[in-house]
Amino acid sequence: MGRVKISPISGFPEYLPAERIVEQHFLDVIRETFELHGFPSIETRAVEPVERLLGKGGDADKEIYAVSRLAAEDSAADAELGLHFDLTVPFARYVLENAGHLPFPFRRHQIQKVWRGERPQEGRYREFTQADIDVVDVGALAPHFEAEMPLVVAEVFRRLPIGPMVIQVNNRKIPEGFYLGLGIEDVTGTLRIVDKLDKIGPAKVADALVDAGCTEEQAARCLALAEIRSEDLSFVERVRALGVEHPILDEGLEALGAVIQAGLDNAPGAMVADLKIARGLDYYTGTVYETQLVGYESWGSFCSGGRYDSLASDGRTTYPGVGISIGVSRLLGLLLGKGLLKASRSTPACVLVAVNDEASRRSSTRVATALRGRGIPCEVAPAAAKFGKQIRYAERRGIPYVWFPGGGGSGDQVKDIRSGDQVDADGSTWSPPAEDLAPQIVRA
Amino acid sequence: MGRVKISPISGFPEYLPAERIVEQHFLDVIRETFELHGFPSIETRAVEPVERLLGKGGDADKEIYAVSRLAAEDSAADAELGLHFDLTVPFARYVLENAGHLPFPFRRHQIQKVWRGERPQEGRYREFTQADIDVVDVGALAPHFEAEMPLVVAEVFRRLPIGPMVIQVNNRKIPEGFYLGLGIEDVTGTLRIVDKLDKIGPAKVADALVDAGCTEEQAARCLALAEIRSEDLSFVERVRALGVEHPILDEGLEALGAVIQAGLDNAPGAMVADLKIARGLDYYTGTVYETQLVGYESWGSFCSGGRYDSLASDGRTTYPGVGISIGVSRLLGLLLGKGLLKASRSTPACVLVAVNDEASRRSSTRVATALRGRGIPCEVAPAAAKFGKQIRYAERRGIPYVWFPGGGGSGDQVKDIRSGDQVDADGSTWSPPAEDLAPQIVRA
Repeated sequence: MGRVKISPISGFPEYLPAERIVEQHFLDVIRETFELHGFPSIETRAVEPVERLLGKGGDADKEIYAVSRLAAEDSAADAELGLHFDLTVPFARYVLENAGHLPFPFRRHQIQKVWRGERPQEGRYREFTQADIDVVDVGALAPHFEAEMPLVVAEVFRRLPIGPMVIQVNNRKIPEGFYLGLGIEDVTGTLRIVDKLDKIGPAKVADALVDAGCTEEQAARCLALAEIRSEDLSFVERVRALGVEHPILDEGLEALGAVIQAGLDNAPGAMVADLKIARGLDYYTGTVYETQLVGYESWGSFCSGGRYDSLASDGRTTYPGVGISIGVSRLLGLLLGKGLLKASRSTPACVLVAVNDEASRRSSTRVATALRGRGIPCEVAPAAAKFGKQIRYAERRGIPYVWFPGGGGSGDQVKDIRSGDQVDADGSTWSPPAEDLAPQIVRA
Repeated sequence: MGRVKISPISGFPEYLPAERIVEQHFLDVIRETFELHGFPSIETRAVEPVERLLGKGGDADKEIYAVSRLAAEDSAADAELGLHFDLTVPFARYVLENAGHLPFPFRRHQIQKVWRGERPQEGRYREFTQADIDVVDVGALAPHFEAEMPLVVAEVFRRLPIGPMVIQVNNRKIPEGFYLGLGIEDVTGTLRIVDKLDKIGPAKVADALVDAGCTEEQAARCLALAEIRSEDLSFVERVRALGVEHPILDEGLEALGAVIQAGLDNAPGAMVADLKIARGLDYYTGTVYETQLVGYESWGSFCSGGRYDSLASDGRTTYPGVGISIGVSRLLGLLLGKGLLKASRSTPACVLVAVNDEASRRSSTRVATALRGRGIPCEVAPAAAKFGKQIRYAERRGIPYVWFPGGGGSGDQVKDIRSGDQVDADGSTWSPPAEDLAPQIVRA
């Protein structure tokens, strides 16, 4: 190979090993928490038929990466394929394809890369990792699953080294019933305007509502509803105090109450009823979720989802579902990019076994084998250089211990190169403190 | 969405949850073993510039999937991208791109999907997972790394529930020096013919060698070399007994001896010196590896690699490397396809917490939260159905325990639904036997 210019491809981030260790920690915690809550993993292939990807509303077609064989003799022989842009479309297809083999209600988690041909910008990627959980059932889905999803996510965030996250929960039926009770017929149009509250402020939302046909009184009450936010069940009284009645509103308040109550019982402080949350107007039909990192609200939501009455349908059977998706790459990209997190070392190795001379490399390797047999990650020094140089090799990677095999009658010793402490040690019994065994994730 | 025909895409396998549990176990063991040996993880983006993928010899271009934005207004605005077909080409690019930030010798592992547009056949996929380790250095690479690679792989296979694997090791310098010592000048052509030994047998190989210009005596000695195989160092004597001398042969014998000795020291029975192994004629320059599952030799090699003097080069600096790649999907596809392995259950959940009635779901959820707090994966029953139905829900998924929350003064009980044993239990203290905590992988 001649000299070839190497440059990153915009929107396709790659990590150095120490950053990847932080990412792995996040992915491990997410998977472990999903599994604790009984969500088995599935993976779907990276590609779906383009027609299936295009079927999914909005201008999703702008975002799709098409895939084709470079040397296809007959391009018609390949199905027209595209890379998936989320994990929901492939999951819906997987459910339909395997319905006969899946036990319903079916729970699954899915942690995979997705691709979007969008223009890259800070915190937005063309290749990124999402971590989803969903529960899907046949025909009808019990409402308690809507309370379960944010408990799982609350536990994920509690276990991650990132400070408090707040899950904002609403139920689509609350604004819907409220607007209908107020005599507003265009529920979706009204939601769409109220959804701009954070961007344009209450005065402009009120004007837009009046422009859309609301009375000033109706507009004021819509805004009053959207401003209600409570960590406990008091939101119910506050909505009631606005004096609007409708059976759909009652349903929504009861459903959101059950979600918030489950949060108070099992994850106090993690959830807030926030009646301005409206996301996913087109397909969410019940509970909706967004998530903010406290102190970094301007970064937006890292985790969102909700209930859809028709996650999938084959035309005969409808599969309602509820799910939530963590935007792992966007969260990590910001935390790493702002220097808020780092790994304590750039390698899993906890011990570097020094080599006295190349002739005794066999002894060093045997020490390493003994340590590994007891679960201690280690590496043998690459060269029988002066010990100072071998120690610097460990230092550069953040490996905390250097092991000196004995020889000529003396026994082995191990040195904590952070403190300089050096003690006699036996490869068949020595263990590091638990906190040194694996790299630690350190908050800056 | 209307009714859409759903069918699998040939060459893009997907697993049901129980199969995925087996795959996850394999991937976890591989990663854990790689980390024990001090190989940090990296991931590279799924795409590389097509020109970089095409640069890699052979007819690789036939296998590349090109990627382009479906709705690109100006297709020239996008770089011409393709999905990577292995993890070596992206790793070489990553090393060049990040050379200033990597500590050398640089070790990494990489477990990712790759894509090839090949015609699918049994055990061959268009999307599949590979697990690679490599060590790369600047300018020169110490030979002991060639002995380290198969030790790592031997430990992976020892920890996997698959019966014995044998790592066949050779060193390119042995046939090269031997042929040169015999007076054969076309080393590569000769290797190419001898490489067909398993396919066409010794008689046809001898004929082909003679056709290519060897004497019958030379052909016989080439065959005699290729037939040498030993689990210990005796291969050296057997090569010497063929009476051929050359300094490159001496180098090769010494190098292979060091690899086999490391195997005898640290992984007895895992390696064999097998002098017919020749793979990767074009770029391997030292040790080469292949791997056979004992009893399933006809399935071919699941794991292969070797040393290359130029893993990467930017035209000024050359980076020699040694690496080995495990074909995870091909191995698993055969083991699962032949029914040789299965998971003991289709969910991580160890306990199903029953629900007495919907009004008491809160108590069941609190039990689940307590169990999860102590690392016990569980799920709350989806409906307050009759207990028989709740037990069948657990049975269908292989969940071994059903928890019955007390009520009306009685305490909680837990039932092992395999044995029928039911005992009093407290959510803050009860634990399952360790072997029930996670799904087990069972050999059929």
